[in-house]
Amino acid sequence: MNQNLTTDRQTFATHLECSITGERYEADQLHGLSRAGRPLLVRYDLDAVRSAISRDTIEARPTDLWRWRELLPVRQTANIVSLGEIETPLVPLTKSGGPNVLVKDEGRLPTGSFKARGLVMAVAMAKELGVKKIAMPTNGNAGAALAAYATRCGIETIVFCPDDTPEINVREIAMQGARVWRVNGLIDDCGAIVGKGAAEGRWFDFSTLKEPYRIEGKKTMGLELAAQFGWKLPDAIFYPTGGGTGLIGMWKAFDELEKLGWIGSERPKMFAVQASGCAPIVRAFEAGEEHAERWEDASTVAAGIRVPKAVGDFLILRAVRESGGQALAVGDPAILKAVEAAAKQDGLLLCPEGGATLAAYHQALNTGLVDEDDKVVLFNCATGLKYPMPEAPQALDRTQPIDFDAL
Amino acid sequence: MNQNLTTDRQTFATHLECSITGERYEADQLHGLSRAGRPLLVRYDLDAVRSAISRDTIEARPTDLWRWRELLPVRQTANIVSLGEIETPLVPLTKSGGPNVLVKDEGRLPTGSFKARGLVMAVAMAKELGVKKIAMPTNGNAGAALAAYATRCGIETIVFCPDDTPEINVREIAMQGARVWRVNGLIDDCGAIVGKGAAEGRWFDFSTLKEPYRIEGKKTMGLELAAQFGWKLPDAIFYPTGGGTGLIGMWKAFDELEKLGWIGSERPKMFAVQASGCAPIVRAFEAGEEHAERWEDASTVAAGIRVPKAVGDFLILRAVRESGGQALAVGDPAILKAVEAAAKQDGLLLCPEGGATLAAYHQALNTGLVDEDDKVVLFNCATGLKYPMPEAPQALDRTQPIDFDAL
Ligand SMILES: Cc1ncc(COP(=O)(O)O)c(C=O)c1O
Ligand SMILES: Cc1ncc(COP(=O)(O)O)c(C=O)c1O
Repeated sequence: MNQNLTTDRQTFATHLECSITGERYEADQLHGLSRAGRPLLVRYDLDAVRSAISRDTIEARPTDLWRWRELLPVRQTANIVSLGEIETPLVPLTKSGGPNVLVKDEGRLPTGSFKARGLVMAVAMAKELGVKKIAMPTNGNAGAALAAYATRCGIETIVFCPDDTPEINVREIAMQGARVWRVNGLIDDCGAIVGKGAAEGRWFDFSTLKEPYRIEGKKTMGLELAAQFGWKLPDAIFYPTGGGTGLIGMWKAFDELEKLGWIGSERPKMFAVQASGCAPIVRAFEAGEEHAERWEDASTVAAGIRVPKAVGDFLILRAVRESGGQALAVGDPAILKAVEAAAKQDGLLLCPEGGATLAAYHQALNTGLVDEDDKVVLFNCATGLKYPMPEAPQALDRTQPIDFDAL
Repeated sequence: MNQNLTTDRQTFATHLECSITGERYEADQLHGLSRAGRPLLVRYDLDAVRSAISRDTIEARPTDLWRWRELLPVRQTANIVSLGEIETPLVPLTKSGGPNVLVKDEGRLPTGSFKARGLVMAVAMAKELGVKKIAMPTNGNAGAALAAYATRCGIETIVFCPDDTPEINVREIAMQGARVWRVNGLIDDCGAIVGKGAAEGRWFDFSTLKEPYRIEGKKTMGLELAAQFGWKLPDAIFYPTGGGTGLIGMWKAFDELEKLGWIGSERPKMFAVQASGCAPIVRAFEAGEEHAERWEDASTVAAGIRVPKAVGDFLILRAVRESGGQALAVGDPAILKAVEAAAKQDGLLLCPEGGATLAAYHQALNTGLVDEDDKVVLFNCATGLKYPMPEAPQALDRTQPIDFDAL
């Protein structure tokens, strides 16, 4: 049906590289973190890609995630596990945002969040490399995406989430065939359990950035933006940052695209958006640090970005700094106000993390970090339908005369 | 950005026609039902369309709903109110369905349901024709789509829903800027209130098929299927049928495509799927009737198809019969079992109405109405995330030693 899923195409992945030491690792083998305890990055023979395909090749294909096959690590077409990874639309937020504000609406992806991008790739690679059992800590959405894709190809999964993870997330994970446990702690506490089991050889550890392929899936956000903007890039990107895979992934995508000669050297300002109640990257950014310390007593309505400690902290900080952007913190009240404004004024229901980017955009506008003429992309990482909404309790008794003027 | 939303293109709509008498009505005017009290259908100058564009023209455009502009009624590009109406993907349901079963995953549309297709069109036309206030009865999803699009272009909306409408639907409607009332009754009771207010000139009546343009939006499901199947059509379509707009719309689309010479004369068998607890179309189909009587005491978990009386009943029945298909009823237990099977086996979370189509497919397979070799499309009309899921209550205390073998 969709030729991207059925046509054999080459991956140009050649090897992996430690993100901190540059040490080289073999492709087509199972890897976790590097020996230095840091994320591994997949490298491609970009000269060969440039000779093999062009922007026109890409544009002639169906517009889903798999059109980027040459820049993705999966070798065998048969290992693609797909639930329909469409290109997500850019929706203008004219009233609550401004004339040049677009929302990349990632809630349209399978399982309702951008986690599908990372997990579709990581699961395909797990399948390719013979993994039989996977465990993962999650704030909700990543676990749901893992469950769906792993179930689809018969890989066993076990998921740990903080005990106050939204009920709907826990349920969808279970519904989609994973075993799920609520843990009295935060995501890094869950990660510790996953790490322990992995060390004992019980399962493969799928924590953010602890396996190398989720970042390749998230990279497609950057690739898509380039294609959607006609092989230019927006002036600024606001990304709600937990583990930061997406921000790191997009930065990597831009680099690869420039090396291919498909875009120029201009880059968007990257804004890493966090919640005031959990802002380790913002604190490190402001202190000029290269790494971020754990944030104690993390708390925010935006559960997806409640990540006290990110293993890719230095990659996030590096990308933000190189881009001339900034790390910004917004409070929960501003987040909720932004969600309400987008829904009530523009008819677009954002997730709280998406709301955070809108709040951060206004902060950046007020402080002169961006101006109204800048073309801006905000990431709405998940469908707003997964999150609590205010009650709407008005009832009407049809057996009584209706006062139409009061409706 | 997306050229479909910014390029001026002609609509070839010429007039409207009463679906029962054939009486002609002017285009570009506000219409409700025909003088005979039946739905109006939009007619196009298809010869002119055939001269103006080809299948290649369509294929060269971005793959969203607006690529079909010449076959849609909106005249002014500026009246398009868009939230990103992407082409929905076809997702194979290999294990819980079969080797030739595809789900058209309509939950990816704005507001998480296929109601976006109808409402984006109806709201654009309301804008074009100067409507200032709209009211609508809804089982939930239609109201959410109306609220989003109307809010986006500043039209006031008021929505009435049965008092047991899923909480999430009522809340999203309110969140997206509509006034919403729960009514102690069913959707046709809500419709009566809307009708009364409309008769008093308080608002424009947006009930299913009572305005002519929702069907044009829903028609795009048929247009998309034709393009996605390479200008052939599947062998059978299973459509969860409430008001039946989508089924009627697809049937109309196939007819227009054949007149354009873009597809041949073969048609899929159309299966109108209802719940055993509310199956007026099935009863009428089996009795050989042309119209369907109201179903009393309607009750089913699949709220979207709990429609006791459909104003387009004869159009649904006609299409099903002409196609060689059938109207099928499935019980709530079969619906819930199908939802669970799709999630647990194929990682795809269906809405109950989508589950109904999967249950009906198995029924049709068992009774020989279709066979395993038939290429089948099931409509998942809304994201499964809007519906209640079973509890998943397992908790783990990280302060105690963890028994890994028991996880
Ligand atoms: C809705 C949402 N937004 C943002 C994030 C953070 O994503 P990342 O880990 O790529 O920073 C998450 C992660 O859980 C999420 O679920
Ligand atoms: C999820 C869902 N499925 C099916 C339907 C029925 O659609 P139609 O009125 O086109 O028959 C609805 C309508 O409310 C719905 O919300």
